[in-house]
Amino acid sequence: MASFADRLIEEIRTKDSRCIVGLDPRIDQMPAFVGSSICAAITEFHELVLDAVVDLVPAVKPQLAFFEQYGVAGLQAFENTVRAARQRGLLVIADGKRNDISSTAEAYANAYLGGAGFDCDALTVTPYLGRDSLVPFVEACKRYGKGLFVVLKTSNPGSKDFEDQLLAETGRPLYEKIGCVLNELGGELVGESGYSSIGAVIGATFPEEGRRLRALMPKALILVPGYGAQGGSANAAAECFNEDGLGAIVNSSRGITYAFGEPNISRDAFVRSVRENTVRMIEEVNAALKTTTGALP
Amino acid sequence: MASFADRLIEEIRTKDSRCIVGLDPRIDQMPAFVGSSICAAITEFHELVLDAVVDLVPAVKPQLAFFEQYGVAGLQAFENTVRAARQRGLLVIADGKRNDISSTAEAYANAYLGGAGFDCDALTVTPYLGRDSLVPFVEACKRYGKGLFVVLKTSNPGSKDFEDQLLAETGRPLYEKIGCVLNELGGELVGESGYSSIGAVIGATFPEEGRRLRALMPKALILVPGYGAQGGSANAAAECFNEDGLGAIVNSSRGITYAFGEPNISRDAFVRSVRENTVRMIEEVNAALKTTTGALP
Repeated sequence: MASFADRLIEEIRTKDSRCIVGLDPRIDQMPAFVGSSICAAITEFHELVLDAVVDLVPAVKPQLAFFEQYGVAGLQAFENTVRAARQRGLLVIADGKRNDISSTAEAYANAYLGGAGFDCDALTVTPYLGRDSLVPFVEACKRYGKGLFVVLKTSNPGSKDFEDQLLAETGRPLYEKIGCVLNELGGELVGESGYSSIGAVIGATFPEEGRRLRALMPKALILVPGYGAQGGSANAAAECFNEDGLGAIVNSSRGITYAFGEPNISRDAFVRSVRENTVRMIEEVNAALKTTTGALP
Repeated sequence: MASFADRLIEEIRTKDSRCIVGLDPRIDQMPAFVGSSICAAITEFHELVLDAVVDLVPAVKPQLAFFEQYGVAGLQAFENTVRAARQRGLLVIADGKRNDISSTAEAYANAYLGGAGFDCDALTVTPYLGRDSLVPFVEACKRYGKGLFVVLKTSNPGSKDFEDQLLAETGRPLYEKIGCVLNELGGELVGESGYSSIGAVIGATFPEEGRRLRALMPKALILVPGYGAQGGSANAAAECFNEDGLGAIVNSSRGITYAFGEPNISRDAFVRSVRENTVRMIEEVNAALKTTTGALP
């Protein structure tokens, strides 16, 4: 069984793409053609997005919050979306920022990484509750060939409040301490690609922090949100990559799927819009990497 | 519209009970009578628990992870459980440890507090992402009369790793800094009871920390997990109460609902077991409060 990291790196190399598409269902912003049934609308919208980007990106990132706001119908649409993505050969990173302690953390790991609830390839989790809260997720990654992205430094202004706090013991920010714990936990899950299936989330809006964390965690895969709509640039995101031009994936959600303009757009024109937005982002990120690291040809 | 805090305090006074029951579906540990359909089994199990405790506790706390591990059927059972509890007049605290930034945090607030997805009375959230990540939840509490419990100091050993970190700026633990932010955010939501609808989660396994946080956040409602199965005692939990004998609710899950022994137990005997376990816990907590604070008659 190939590890999550190895599968992701292979897709990145094959497609020459370090970008992923975020799937955030907002029915009131979808094109008119999707209709009014919650589950059917979200499912069709995402199937069209997946068809548009299947050969362009290694993975998609459905954001659970946007599905959960539609209740059970939304979760049914989440299941449909995950299945549709995996059937097309796309990796699925469930963005749930989950965590809890002991047997509850195990239940979350089962729910998203164990194939029991929703059969995803990776999950985002929060670190606040400590090392032992992360262990059940790491164990599930080991057992089932799945991946984890632990939130370290988010793209919002408020990430300075607690994430950035300098610790008395080291004089260094809290997120660095968590990064060191992730290095230790991820050590056993380094695949043939040289990357670990235990990764981190670092917002594109903080390039300095991205550069330092990249150096601190050379084998971690970094999921970079905050590109585009949230103000992160391709050059800023490039700081999260290694000199081999690998080691990170940059996410955009609204800028890809909701930038189509006119609500009465046709299905074909919607697919073209999603595809063009994705191609443009991939080119921008690859161009920035070429300038910054000189790693890409 | 009465605030969440006022509704909870009224139920606590009426029932003379500071205990709540955690609902953690584990189908393989349920009595044999529940059958094998996931949704039907979880729903029936919880309806019996709710009938057993409806006059004994102010609230129940379904743990989302245990529902999510059963996929869409589990979430349907969650919806059924929430509805069944509210129909019986019990407050529902959804234990989801959710959080994210900006519009995603809004989506979570809609999902659990806005009546759009799942119509709960309160939600647990994690604080790591900063003050601005908490604001959309606080706004929802204000608008819809709902409540929030922010994770401060959890009951697991690993809570020392990050939650307890002493900060360079103050020499005090991180969780105290977060507590100060909660005091500020919760100030506007103090009800007629004198308590705020913006509360905190503090594990029963750390009585020292509980005492200090109680003093730091006199108006916060404290949700105290870790009682019983996790090793927290009634005396330890009592540290999270004010001298008025109020201000906290103590949760037990497994110790109430899965302590029935024989899997071939009858429905009646199961209900009796749940009821007896709950009565015993209420008596233990009230007795500890009498000793510790002298507040109860």
